[in-house]
Amino acid sequence: MAEADSRNLIADMSARARTAARLLAAMPSEAKSAALRAGAQALRDAADTIQAANAQDVAAAQAAGLSGAMLDRLKLDAGRIAAMADGVAAVAALTDPVGAVIERVERPNGLALSRVRVPIGVIGIIYESRPNVTADAGALCAMAGNAAILRGGSEAIRSNRAVHAALVEGLAAGGMPTDAVQLVPVTDRAAVGAMLGAAGLIDMVVPRGGKGLVARVQAEARVPVLAHLDGLNHTYLHAAADPAMARELALNAKMRRTGICGATETLLVDRGFGGTAAVLAALAEAGCELRGDGEVQAVEPRTVAVADADWDTEYLDAVLAVKLVDGPDEAMAHIGRHGSGHTDAIVTRDAAVAERFLAQVDSAIVMWNASTQFADGGEFGLGAEIGISTGRLHARGPVALEGLTTYKWIVRGTGQARP
Amino acid sequence: MAEADSRNLIADMSARARTAARLLAAMPSEAKSAALRAGAQALRDAADTIQAANAQDVAAAQAAGLSGAMLDRLKLDAGRIAAMADGVAAVAALTDPVGAVIERVERPNGLALSRVRVPIGVIGIIYESRPNVTADAGALCAMAGNAAILRGGSEAIRSNRAVHAALVEGLAAGGMPTDAVQLVPVTDRAAVGAMLGAAGLIDMVVPRGGKGLVARVQAEARVPVLAHLDGLNHTYLHAAADPAMARELALNAKMRRTGICGATETLLVDRGFGGTAAVLAALAEAGCELRGDGEVQAVEPRTVAVADADWDTEYLDAVLAVKLVDGPDEAMAHIGRHGSGHTDAIVTRDAAVAERFLAQVDSAIVMWNASTQFADGGEFGLGAEIGISTGRLHARGPVALEGLTTYKWIVRGTGQARP
Repeated sequence: MAEADSRNLIADMSARARTAARLLAAMPSEAKSAALRAGAQALRDAADTIQAANAQDVAAAQAAGLSGAMLDRLKLDAGRIAAMADGVAAVAALTDPVGAVIERVERPNGLALSRVRVPIGVIGIIYESRPNVTADAGALCAMAGNAAILRGGSEAIRSNRAVHAALVEGLAAGGMPTDAVQLVPVTDRAAVGAMLGAAGLIDMVVPRGGKGLVARVQAEARVPVLAHLDGLNHTYLHAAADPAMARELALNAKMRRTGICGATETLLVDRGFGGTAAVLAALAEAGCELRGDGEVQAVEPRTVAVADADWDTEYLDAVLAVKLVDGPDEAMAHIGRHGSGHTDAIVTRDAAVAERFLAQVDSAIVMWNASTQFADGGEFGLGAEIGISTGRLHARGPVALEGLTTYKWIVRGTGQARP
Repeated sequence: MAEADSRNLIADMSARARTAARLLAAMPSEAKSAALRAGAQALRDAADTIQAANAQDVAAAQAAGLSGAMLDRLKLDAGRIAAMADGVAAVAALTDPVGAVIERVERPNGLALSRVRVPIGVIGIIYESRPNVTADAGALCAMAGNAAILRGGSEAIRSNRAVHAALVEGLAAGGMPTDAVQLVPVTDRAAVGAMLGAAGLIDMVVPRGGKGLVARVQAEARVPVLAHLDGLNHTYLHAAADPAMARELALNAKMRRTGICGATETLLVDRGFGGTAAVLAALAEAGCELRGDGEVQAVEPRTVAVADADWDTEYLDAVLAVKLVDGPDEAMAHIGRHGSGHTDAIVTRDAAVAERFLAQVDSAIVMWNASTQFADGGEFGLGAEIGISTGRLHARGPVALEGLTTYKWIVRGTGQARP
């Protein structure tokens, strides 16, 4: 599609989204919930259609030689479709932040001010192969009163269309405008560019996918972006760490699932910690490749040589950079230099050291005696997440419904003129 | 200055600002307040030096033929310097948002989560002729724990240097790092470009000045911007408006000060409102040029013809576009099409109509029976303001200390690994 055509397409979709957003903003919570429940039911009812569309995507992807991991992300079986519908129903059960009064102020002149949560407006979601994002992200945006413009990957287009058609049919039957959740009908890159340039039309873009996608979105966007590029997370085993806890948390933080953004990528170990050999041995035995300098190799001979680039590498794999440090200040300085501001943890029995770490480490999530793998909206009790943000404005860490809202100031007077 | 030199300059200043910001983030509220009070005193002590520097700026500006309004904005007399110092002392007395716990969550697995306010980090302020912004903005940023990089206009450079030198001397004597508030030493446009492109180095930019400056910043910035371009505000006189209140509020909203962003630019009058002639006559007698169509001219003969462009024009002058409408829906549709999302007001005795207006008009500030000229951080009880934002993310409306903070998630565990 030509660039100008893409811009026109996105401008048209955005205008319809804005109209839908105005209607959504005025919908009571229970009406939004009811529409989402109808959407969930429509997904269940369309399971066969969705699975047939998905089979075509999978066949095309296999023919194109896509990797096993990508095929797995693409594939929708009956269980995954049911889980997708359950996810939409779960969003319907979340507490709606819209309308909440953040603050009330009565001024001496009698003006009554209140700061009230309202939807953001029009949210763009740009994602890759997982077709469940169509339902998840659409449901989260709509529950917070926003219209969504979804642009999924070409490899999942048939699946996305089927999921989208079912979801919107249900939402509309439940009383939402049909433009509440729109799917961009084309999958070329120009449409992404048009979305990223749609300042004033799209209020925020959330990229969901690999680093290449997020980097492009962050580099090109003229609209605000909610995202994280890297999860270069650290776990620091302090001298006063409990050895058994340190071993369990290091193993869990690295090895529970190596491919998620909350996985630890660098282990910082205090020279004063007594359990280093046991921790490193446990990691090596669990199949983790350790990278460290000669001092680390002397402790754990299965360690391979570390390069400077390792400290800045998000492996998303069973690989761990290991560094010995002298005390919390060196650990925090390393995190400040090499971290991505996502999630960093300290393991220690020393509460004063822990509190200093929690206060001084400047990351979206800081943890004491817990696995970095807990960095997740569900685990934080948010019920779901649209993504995790390492940006410093608007919303930070796991973002769910509240991060999809903003506020307005309402001023009620009795005829006050300003002196 | 060459572009590469500007980039290096801003990169160097940003790195020093980041170091200062880490120290500021850890300063207790009382220590920040004490340093600001010392800064206020230093401004008072340096009043003669500042006035001498300002006299040079004013003389150069007069020689360059600057207009009277610009000269007035530039000029610092003893009273304005005292007011500037008082402003810094007033910021020192504000409640510090840093450290406030926004939310606490205890998870079933025992993890204790808290969401805690922290400074944003490094804030860039780009402003024009008013030298008091050097002190005001520097103080607000520092009180919220942020380092500030200030870039003032060339016409005020001597004044800005004198104000900055005194402020920083006081802040440093009071215990703040000297890099907490930095002034860009050059005033060419390349330095502004370098600040706007400093993604990851500067966390947010706030432009303070005319529309040309704000438009350039919004168009070029690769860093988040907190600003408003226009204050195209409406006052809607509903059919059920009290005629005397309508007259007073229309006069105040337009004429109290015509050059501020909270001034009303378009008056929407319901055809069912009985007091139209009196309101328009009062405005005309107060020296306001009225622009309207033949129907408006029939009510108030001093009205001149309105053009389509008027509905989208922020006059910032004693000029008012006037439109007759049939009911709140037409009024709200006009605001939705032509407003800038800054401040819009309804005057009515009908509470149900008012509440519908407050809910449906999608502006940063919506008002009922009050003058739009109250759109101001001081009037809102915020104690000061860094600016007013019409953006939809992070902060909206008047922004003071809280808008200069973000939050982080603190997770305290007892050894939890994620299942």
